[in-house]
Amino acid sequence: MSETKNFTLAVVPGDGIGPEVTTEALKVLDAVAAQHGVTFDRTEYDLGAKRWHATGETLPDAELEEIRKHDAILLGAVGDPSVPSGVLERGLLLKLRFTLDHYVNLRPSKIYPSVGSPLANPGEVDFVVVREGTEGPYVGNGGALRVGTPAEIATEVSVNTAYGVERVVRDAFARAQARPRKKLTLVHKNNVLVHAGHLWKRTVDAVAAEFPDITVDYLHVDAATIFLVTDPSRFDVIVTDNLFGDIITDLAAAISGGIGLAASGNINPDRTAPSMFEPVHGSAPDIAGQQKADPTAAILSASLLLEHLGLTEAAKAIEDAVTADIEERTDAVRSTAEIGDAIAKRA
Amino acid sequence: MSETKNFTLAVVPGDGIGPEVTTEALKVLDAVAAQHGVTFDRTEYDLGAKRWHATGETLPDAELEEIRKHDAILLGAVGDPSVPSGVLERGLLLKLRFTLDHYVNLRPSKIYPSVGSPLANPGEVDFVVVREGTEGPYVGNGGALRVGTPAEIATEVSVNTAYGVERVVRDAFARAQARPRKKLTLVHKNNVLVHAGHLWKRTVDAVAAEFPDITVDYLHVDAATIFLVTDPSRFDVIVTDNLFGDIITDLAAAISGGIGLAASGNINPDRTAPSMFEPVHGSAPDIAGQQKADPTAAILSASLLLEHLGLTEAAKAIEDAVTADIEERTDAVRSTAEIGDAIAKRA
Ligand SMILES: CC(C)[C@H](C(=O)O)[C@@H](O)C(=O)O
Ligand SMILES: CC(C)[C@H](C(=O)O)[C@@H](O)C(=O)O
Repeated sequence: MSETKNFTLAVVPGDGIGPEVTTEALKVLDAVAAQHGVTFDRTEYDLGAKRWHATGETLPDAELEEIRKHDAILLGAVGDPSVPSGVLERGLLLKLRFTLDHYVNLRPSKIYPSVGSPLANPGEVDFVVVREGTEGPYVGNGGALRVGTPAEIATEVSVNTAYGVERVVRDAFARAQARPRKKLTLVHKNNVLVHAGHLWKRTVDAVAAEFPDITVDYLHVDAATIFLVTDPSRFDVIVTDNLFGDIITDLAAAISGGIGLAASGNINPDRTAPSMFEPVHGSAPDIAGQQKADPTAAILSASLLLEHLGLTEAAKAIEDAVTADIEERTDAVRSTAEIGDAIAKRA
Repeated sequence: MSETKNFTLAVVPGDGIGPEVTTEALKVLDAVAAQHGVTFDRTEYDLGAKRWHATGETLPDAELEEIRKHDAILLGAVGDPSVPSGVLERGLLLKLRFTLDHYVNLRPSKIYPSVGSPLANPGEVDFVVVREGTEGPYVGNGGALRVGTPAEIATEVSVNTAYGVERVVRDAFARAQARPRKKLTLVHKNNVLVHAGHLWKRTVDAVAAEFPDITVDYLHVDAATIFLVTDPSRFDVIVTDNLFGDIITDLAAAISGGIGLAASGNINPDRTAPSMFEPVHGSAPDIAGQQKADPTAAILSASLLLEHLGLTEAAKAIEDAVTADIEERTDAVRSTAEIGDAIAKRA
């Protein structure tokens, strides 16, 4: 006799290619769920550019509170050129990350042997970036004076707290501890951003004392981009702030199979609110609705979602299905749905 | 009858490999100067880690005022692990850049056909990054409260003004205008850093109206790192803020022959103070004093210096000598001085 476990899932397909890739992620999620004795009760939320044009709303608080009641969130992509830059990013995506306290933005990078890398000799790449998700220059503290005049001044304030830095650094050390290489690299710019940088460095040094078997090093963000293209296999776990994490994870995706494969989890490790899973890629409005997008990143994000819910075997089933699919990729062009179907069949 | 023109040069060899590479840059500079009817009266300034340890000084104002009297500045590298991170960077390097109003930080990237790139198919790469040099998160506005306690908060403030953005954007447009492809890409993160980002975007749009033959596009900094490894030949002139410029120019150097070849100019286009030329690389303390550093970046920085002084032919002579040297590089290891000698001989 087996018991079926039921989870609730809030789905935010969003803009551009978001809906297409989300459809495939849900297809694969359902396929593995059935085999692992779980179901997902889904509620879809109509948020993004269309909604904003129709109502002026990005994410009303009441809807956020509804979303909060779910076990997890699956998000497609947010952003559209018809909406002023920042409106949806700040009003929807970052509002979710910040309000639901997604302080660990987890972004694994792995080179699949059969997938081409733009690097001539990438070597073995298998690292994870733990990007802080609730502080740094993303907090929205800043403003502008005398806008549109020659005397305009605009500021952006990066806010960093011991509270916020320590919790994400601890999470990164715990992840390093669970990995065979046990290595952690702090990426910052503490030779220029001395206040924030020294807080990060001191915190890593302090927490390191509790993890004597972890090898710790430090790289300035500019140097980190060099190593990401000259020696990416040196990385195991990277911990970094919100903005540096944004930048280096796009680069990390690019060197390891491309942004079409890069998954992410916006995780609330304390489980005081649901975590949110989304591809690293954006809404790619230029190819939206054409079945041209690779849904693999969204599908792998569903795998991270399962992992977070403790469904390790189901998560592994998706990962294995993706690996198998990737290994047999040819030059033949497949539609978004065809890739989703192929992975769902293997899962 | 020929006339000898005399220029004054302030030399700051600095830390780590700085003195070694500066020696070679001066060797090459002297070689071409002699042939082009110019001389350089040099004054060396003992600034950097050693000086700080001995006296606690980074760059006394009186010395800065002396340096200011020169026609140009040649700098090696700044920074040493024995000095708390930020002390020399802020107190010496950034003090020079800010006080001497080096608002154009010019960083060309070029792939020499014979030099290996970590990219499998780099294509033709020949772009220049115009990095803003006197604003952004580099201004040193920020601070920390309750340092070392669990209630610590550290901020970094990015300051951006219409005055500061417009002048560097105009410079970038002028450079794009003088290049065959006439393309300008603004790199920022205006979907998150909305105040600063919109100021940059609006400024570029406004100045673009005066340059109708320049093709303008915009990339978020994260996306820019992707294109730098997947399609670097798309770039011609990039204009960006101080921090984004720092990050993408290290990446740009890495994909195009490495940080050993990347030169830069900290330029005051209004010539109200001397401009300063330095390799993009750091002080590399791990290989300092071992004649292992490649002085090419410092030598190419001397070429940018000549160019800035209007000595176009002499500048070209260095560039050609470097190109010839690079084209004949083999796997044989050469010392810093051997590379300098070889280039000086060709110049
Ligand atoms: C869309 C944008 C706000 C977002 C970010 O900057 O975090 C994206 O680039 C990402 O990396 O998830
Ligand atoms: C040494 C450091 C302060 C400097 C910078 O960040 O500008 C360096 O990285 C550079 O790019 O010239």
